Amino acid sequence: MSEKVRLIEVKENILDDNTVVSAGLREELKQKKTFLMNLMASPGAGKTTTLLSTLGRLKEDLRIGVLEADIDSVVDAEKIADSGIDAVQLRTGGFCHMDATMVKEGLDAIGYEAYDLIVLENVGNLVCPAEFDTGSLLNAMILSIPEGDDKPLKYPLMFSVCNVILVNKIDTIDLFDFDMDAFRERVLKINPDVKIFEISAKTGQGVDEWAAWLKASVKEITG
Amino acid sequence: MSEKVRLIEVKENILDDNTVVSAGLREELKQKKTFLMNLMASPGAGKTTTLLSTLGRLKEDLRIGVLEADIDSVVDAEKIADSGIDAVQLRTGGFCHMDATMVKEGLDAIGYEAYDLIVLENVGNLVCPAEFDTGSLLNAMILSIPEGDDKPLKYPLMFSVCNVILVNKIDTIDLFDFDMDAFRERVLKINPDVKIFEISAKTGQGVDEWAAWLKASVKEITG
Repeated sequence: MSEKVRLIEVKENILDDNTVVSAGLREELKQKKTFLMNLMASPGAGKTTTLLSTLGRLKEDLRIGVLEADIDSVVDAEKIADSGIDAVQLRTGGFCHMDATMVKEGLDAIGYEAYDLIVLENVGNLVCPAEFDTGSLLNAMILSIPEGDDKPLKYPLMFSVCNVILVNKIDTIDLFDFDMDAFRERVLKINPDVKIFEISAKTGQGVDEWAAWLKASVKEITG
Repeated sequence: MSEKVRLIEVKENILDDNTVVSAGLREELKQKKTFLMNLMASPGAGKTTTLLSTLGRLKEDLRIGVLEADIDSVVDAEKIADSGIDAVQLRTGGFCHMDATMVKEGLDAIGYEAYDLIVLENVGNLVCPAEFDTGSLLNAMILSIPEGDDKPLKYPLMFSVCNVILVNKIDTIDLFDFDMDAFRERVLKINPDVKIFEISAKTGQGVDEWAAWLKASVKEITG
């Protein structure tokens, strides 16, 4: 394991009510002027590549830290750290989502007060993470083109709890049967206020616009 | 909803021990000479397309039924039914995996004794379904090329419980950074006995070989 990356084993707190813990955590983060973004997606949608592409555009202007949640392995945190951004790996040991108590452990481990923006890369899963408020100020999700335009029909809770959707791998849209109009219609029916960006983390397409929007959202909190 | 498809609302049985229920179910299926395959994958890996492509090659030789598990929506079962294969939609109402009790409800609903092969299309999730024995005789998983070759590092339990892996969307391998040798090495380290097929459900590449293997496995049970 790279020496750049710290590994934290996180555990669920089954005694506390997650609704209470997450609400308290959100207040605390606001007071300390740290913006927490919760990034959710399927396995392989491109969470880490999107973070590298996005945060590379913001790291001169914002102090950024990343909490990488994974069931096992530290590969993602190492990639982030190699790009010059502070990262802590949170290993859930088989657990399928992050709750606010686990996030709090990660925030304390990284020393969140030193950062304007902390990104939590949640476990790759469109089901369970949607059910648990992490205390974040922004829920972002990535849906990649190869996954298909029918996913809002199948994972409605995920699409309803996110504030922003990044439609990633947009450069491959001609190769897959993805109907963007149908996708947007399905999403907006569930979540009329969601913001949608079409991006390719690999080619950079659309990332400037998304990164600028994220920076503006962070600045609203950090001042 | 299509009239071809029956929708069953399934519920977890929190009182019974899943290990006991699944073992009993497996015995019952063997006695009745019905082969149950549990198909798992990430959202968008191509479960339904792979089933259509595979079962189309087998439906003249085997009596086939499909249990489509989904959190919400009946789109998958309708696609299967439209292809002339009997299908029942199991709606989990937010639940992230299928346990043996839920599968039993589905088997009873479809009348499993009338079939040689029942395919359970599990909820799209690489985490939770791996933890629950469904009573199946075969655990198959699909990993699609766009998801990346690092998934065995991140979801080791899933890769360890499956008997066969279908590497789908193989026709797109030149577009994504997918190292097949590295993937195979990572998988075989976790699960040395697993069988791996490279397929494209869309173009049909490799599907004949996989379908022939599945048919032979079913025939071992049904005679």
